Amino acid sequence: MSNSMLVVTAHVGDFVWRCGGAMALHAQRGVPVHLICLSYGENGESNAAWQGAAPVERDAVKQLRRAEAEAAAEILGVASLDFYDLGDYPLPESPESVQRISQTMRATRPAVVLTHPEHDPSNLDHCRTYEMVLRARMQAMAPGHGADHVVPPQVLCFEPHQSELCGFKPNLLLEITAVWEQKWQAMQAMPTQRNLWTYYERVALQRGAQAGRRAKSVGTLYGEAYQSIFPAVVPAFVE
Amino acid sequence: MSNSMLVVTAHVGDFVWRCGGAMALHAQRGVPVHLICLSYGENGESNAAWQGAAPVERDAVKQLRRAEAEAAAEILGVASLDFYDLGDYPLPESPESVQRISQTMRATRPAVVLTHPEHDPSNLDHCRTYEMVLRARMQAMAPGHGADHVVPPQVLCFEPHQSELCGFKPNLLLEITAVWEQKWQAMQAMPTQRNLWTYYERVALQRGAQAGRRAKSVGTLYGEAYQSIFPAVVPAFVE
Amino acid sequence: MSNSMLVVTAHVGDFVWRCGGAMALHAQRGVPVHLICLSYGENGESNAAWQGAAPVERDAVKQLRRAEAEAAAEILGVASLDFYDLGDYPLPESPESVQRISQTMRATRPAVVLTHPEHDPSNLDHCRTYEMVLRARMQAMAPGHGADHVVPPQVLCFEPHQSELCGFKPNLLLEITAVWEQKWQAMQAMPTQRNLWTYYERVALQRGAQAGRRAKSVGTLYGEAYQSIFPAVVPAFVE
Amino acid sequence: MSNSMLVVTAHVGDFVWRCGGAMALHAQRGVPVHLICLSYGENGESNAAWQGAAPVERDAVKQLRRAEAEAAAEILGVASLDFYDLGDYPLPESPESVQRISQTMRATRPAVVLTHPEHDPSNLDHCRTYEMVLRARMQAMAPGHGADHVVPPQVLCFEPHQSELCGFKPNLLLEITAVWEQKWQAMQAMPTQRNLWTYYERVALQRGAQAGRRAKSVGTLYGEAYQSIFPAVVPAFVE
Amino acid sequence: MSNSMLVVTAHVGDFVWRCGGAMALHAQRGVPVHLICLSYGENGESNAAWQGAAPVERDAVKQLRRAEAEAAAEILGVASLDFYDLGDYPLPESPESVQRISQTMRATRPAVVLTHPEHDPSNLDHCRTYEMVLRARMQAMAPGHGADHVVPPQVLCFEPHQSELCGFKPNLLLEITAVWEQKWQAMQAMPTQRNLWTYYERVALQRGAQAGRRAKSVGTLYGEAYQSIFPAVVPAFVE
Amino acid sequence: MSNSMLVVTAHVGDFVWRCGGAMALHAQRGVPVHLICLSYGENGESNAAWQGAAPVERDAVKQLRRAEAEAAAEILGVASLDFYDLGDYPLPESPESVQRISQTMRATRPAVVLTHPEHDPSNLDHCRTYEMVLRARMQAMAPGHGADHVVPPQVLCFEPHQSELCGFKPNLLLEITAVWEQKWQAMQAMPTQRNLWTYYERVALQRGAQAGRRAKSVGTLYGEAYQSIFPAVVPAFVE
Repeated sequence: MSNSMLVVTAHVGDFVWRCGGAMALHAQRGVPVHLICLSYGENGESNAAWQGAAPVERDAVKQLRRAEAEAAAEILGVASLDFYDLGDYPLPESPESVQRISQTMRATRPAVVLTHPEHDPSNLDHCRTYEMVLRARMQAMAPGHGADHVVPPQVLCFEPHQSELCGFKPNLLLEITAVWEQKWQAMQAMPTQRNLWTYYERVALQRGAQAGRRAKSVGTLYGEAYQSIFPAVVPAFVE
Repeated sequence: MSNSMLVVTAHVGDFVWRCGGAMALHAQRGVPVHLICLSYGENGESNAAWQGAAPVERDAVKQLRRAEAEAAAEILGVASLDFYDLGDYPLPESPESVQRISQTMRATRPAVVLTHPEHDPSNLDHCRTYEMVLRARMQAMAPGHGADHVVPPQVLCFEPHQSELCGFKPNLLLEITAVWEQKWQAMQAMPTQRNLWTYYERVALQRGAQAGRRAKSVGTLYGEAYQSIFPAVVPAFVE
Repeated sequence: MSNSMLVVTAHVGDFVWRCGGAMALHAQRGVPVHLICLSYGENGESNAAWQGAAPVERDAVKQLRRAEAEAAAEILGVASLDFYDLGDYPLPESPESVQRISQTMRATRPAVVLTHPEHDPSNLDHCRTYEMVLRARMQAMAPGHGADHVVPPQVLCFEPHQSELCGFKPNLLLEITAVWEQKWQAMQAMPTQRNLWTYYERVALQRGAQAGRRAKSVGTLYGEAYQSIFPAVVPAFVE
Repeated sequence: MSNSMLVVTAHVGDFVWRCGGAMALHAQRGVPVHLICLSYGENGESNAAWQGAAPVERDAVKQLRRAEAEAAAEILGVASLDFYDLGDYPLPESPESVQRISQTMRATRPAVVLTHPEHDPSNLDHCRTYEMVLRARMQAMAPGHGADHVVPPQVLCFEPHQSELCGFKPNLLLEITAVWEQKWQAMQAMPTQRNLWTYYERVALQRGAQAGRRAKSVGTLYGEAYQSIFPAVVPAFVE
Repeated sequence: MSNSMLVVTAHVGDFVWRCGGAMALHAQRGVPVHLICLSYGENGESNAAWQGAAPVERDAVKQLRRAEAEAAAEILGVASLDFYDLGDYPLPESPESVQRISQTMRATRPAVVLTHPEHDPSNLDHCRTYEMVLRARMQAMAPGHGADHVVPPQVLCFEPHQSELCGFKPNLLLEITAVWEQKWQAMQAMPTQRNLWTYYERVALQRGAQAGRRAKSVGTLYGEAYQSIFPAVVPAFVE
Repeated sequence: MSNSMLVVTAHVGDFVWRCGGAMALHAQRGVPVHLICLSYGENGESNAAWQGAAPVERDAVKQLRRAEAEAAAEILGVASLDFYDLGDYPLPESPESVQRISQTMRATRPAVVLTHPEHDPSNLDHCRTYEMVLRARMQAMAPGHGADHVVPPQVLCFEPHQSELCGFKPNLLLEITAVWEQKWQAMQAMPTQRNLWTYYERVALQRGAQAGRRAKSVGTLYGEAYQSIFPAVVPAFVE
């Protein structure tokens, strides 16, 4: 049975802050977690790398971010990691990349794909990624593109930087306390975006508090929020 | 552990068409299913009863609908059934009923409450029921109303008659094929609304087809659609 | 066949500014137009009446507004006019008024009801009127409230003072050029709200321009905008 | 006077399931119905054609779907039929196709254009078609692209596969009982998508039931649902 | 000139977590800040008070919460404080309270009113407060309720506990770093809700980070988020 | 400190009707106002130019519109004016133009950018402009595209032709009475779109009336409406 997870992000840092907990948690449970980063985020999400005293080349920034992403992915237990190097701010349209994502879907047969939400006026790279994922999903389902077509996977959008600005409406809270330490280490493997560490630690604590509220749990909890795009087929509401 | 289900409907017929499958399925799995009908639907949802040649009294209509509801509930395996007899078309506001629902919540400690969606311009009784359920949920959670306060249950809205008119956005599809026969019998236990039988048989087939599409199932499937109001806390996305 | 129109407004002035054209147009075509004003708008929409040098009694304001409304209604060709005198700013809840509106619906059997839109944060009297109309519509449809139950009428919301603030999304434009003169006279029959004359003349010109745009008409046009609540059953899209 | 209808779909099957009734009804009334299919749906909507024992070529699938579409269009009384053969799953962007649609608009001068709704996360080909139609509509209105510019037609979106998922809000119900037999035959002229026959028969019955409810009709009714994009200019609300 | 601020909350704690910074900041600038608490939150928002070993009376809880609110209000520099003691979970409807709020508006003539947002399925007391404030605003504007009628104030909604669940869309960020120490002390003056301290400290840090992002500020910032209900009349966009 | 304003429009006429008041007002206050027109609107928004007796060349229309725009811009006090000449109806995608806008942002460092709103089914050129502006804003913020990266400016959408059709929700009203005469002259400097003069005069009067209503002003007021995309960081709510 298909039980893998595919994560598609616009920039290398996104998977750590937004769904690093889900990745570690599923990897720990034996679910293969595949990761695609459409760009290195070299232009718009590597500010620290550009702010040193000495001039820096774009390729050096890309190498740096790639190394950080590989380190973080390893901490989270990622099964495969693919960099498309499309450039960012803005991320260009790329039918070839849509096809390439669809081929990864055919090869890995994910039950669920994690990606950015549909809207974000402050970051259209995220919107474009969402659209590319949905388009790739169609391509992966189509018999005319190969007999290995897939059952259409669920798509879950992870949390953007400012949820309300993006119309993000989470309907799933994932409790990630058991893997928080891993997520925190993966965040620290990204010193180029050091400025985001405490921000996303607080995000995890807020989502954990919300999850605990519904569950009357005790102790400090960490969480991540997700919004499902398609109706989920469930066997029951109460166990 | 709390594992019961509470269903609150505006009129007696609603539970059969809208969530009869969920009720039968959970009852079959050993989940206690409790049912509250705020009215008999005697004025606005018992048309056949009023259309005979001979004049009919409202009390007779209420008795008829009560008997039908009891028969249908038994077929579905309901654990308890409560009629509030508030009157319908329109259903009046009733703080006392809110409190009474909250007491049932305290007594039965449901993990999930099924009720009408928030909006329905063609049937404000449904909207009022939704609001009463949310208000009762608050009252049931409050320590100041008794030490037996509950962990706040999830609220799932079942399908209205015209989904788009009501802004209904289902995010959960429940496959009910295994209990379809029971639901169909429960529907037939309501001859006063015989005109709805084939309509809701088709609704079940459409929702089943949609569920099957996501699951690549074969054979005829039956389904029901639901919209969750609160984020669900989940342990994982992929088993 | 049923072919009457029912208009229900919160305050006496509303019918003139918002749907005076539709009223005159239909009256002219022989459609009986019935009007219900839930209040005289004496507190919040009669400012000129309160601003004179001499003190004024509330009853005097009500009489004044009633006389204005009767004059305007006559100009527009209204078939019947009913004042509920519920008070305004705020308009109170009134189950009795809901029932009374429903009885008028049973008596007049309107094909369409014109009223305020659902939302208006600056004027909750309008929202309450909308809700009362929908509730009365249910009551009028219910066989249990009398054998003279009606086929449910379409509900059309007329334009609020600030459309975007109210989430008003018109899907119907009525060209009222042929009756503009009548509407203008009816507006002038309401000197207490003289401050609104040019505002609503401009509204009519804007809606007329929008209607003309779609129809490639020439000359000055006047219009009114409406939003339908229920799907309309149409025989064809093109004549 | 302009009185034609233009239908633009992403894939060949769409016009049958979604607006075959409107097409037959208007053709029967003497309205010329023009049809544009942007792709043959060969990759993603011809599953049965790919699932045989023997391998199949894409061109053969396209020929098959073309023949089916021609047969269905003839049954529905289509006046002209144009295949753009853009490919599908995904349908590519095509400014040339936008221009070509605009030229058909100039040539046929439709009063109304039927196409897909704006949103559909499960099928971005539908969204792209919607956008291409709106862009072509602009191009057709512009004097700078030729003196034969058109009065902007109304755009009506037909029903997607899962209405709520697409945010589809129908405001028009077309009763198609008189042409149901034709629509049913046209559906059967598409054996490649045999799996959709009963699904869309039920859609027609549900929309017919909803139309009948508003009209108090008797007997089995069939219907189709539409959402208008632009305000409609109407001469009256009640005849 | 009118330059006061009015805050209306459902429960005593709300003003501290949600707008304590705005209150302290404006008080510091010499703006009179008036506060109305519709209930003591004794039933649903005083959990710690009910969880001791010994039984406790509702009146004792109310006294405790009142004292906490008075202490917090003093820290924040509140000019006047009014408790309506309506009860909570649920907060009842109260036309008398609407009138009383409107009288405070007439007396204090606020330029802005801070209150809860319109929607919150987990806490209908907040929704009811919003509605009461808007209704009171109407009553305060109406000449028929007294010659001291007010210019309608702006209404700003402060942040609910789970912003996305409530459809909260902030369009204003208030930087409160200068008064954070006061807000933090006011929070600590509410030990009954000690469980919320760190949650709302993190909310303030997140909103501060978002404010700083737009302003390229440095250092730790604290903020609060607000959503305006009415269009703001502004003299310019750039100073 | 940055205090300039950048205006980006799809067609040359747009800046006059939609934000001419804001431009004149800020220019008068010493704020440099920079203007980019992506097209001359030669195809779709120059109807009068194409309707003469003699045939006309597209280049002549473009020259005409350019001259009109230059005259209007001078009246409004524009500091710089850039024509991209991309063509219109439809306006094509253009990554190069996105980059060029971003370079202007880097050079002029606007505190605020005025442009079209996100949605407009009747004019996709407006939507594309909005998207290009947001994409250019990202590019201008990115250190990897140059060390002169900017603090992200606020984006304010000005009013479309039919606000409700576009989902336009203004939250800012700018009172432009002091510069109305200039705006009116700028409108008259565009005789090719003479048909819009009175329409937009009425828009200005309606927005002025709405602004006055909130401010209890007297006399005839003129206004413009805007919707902010990002939360504004404000120092206080009451002065």
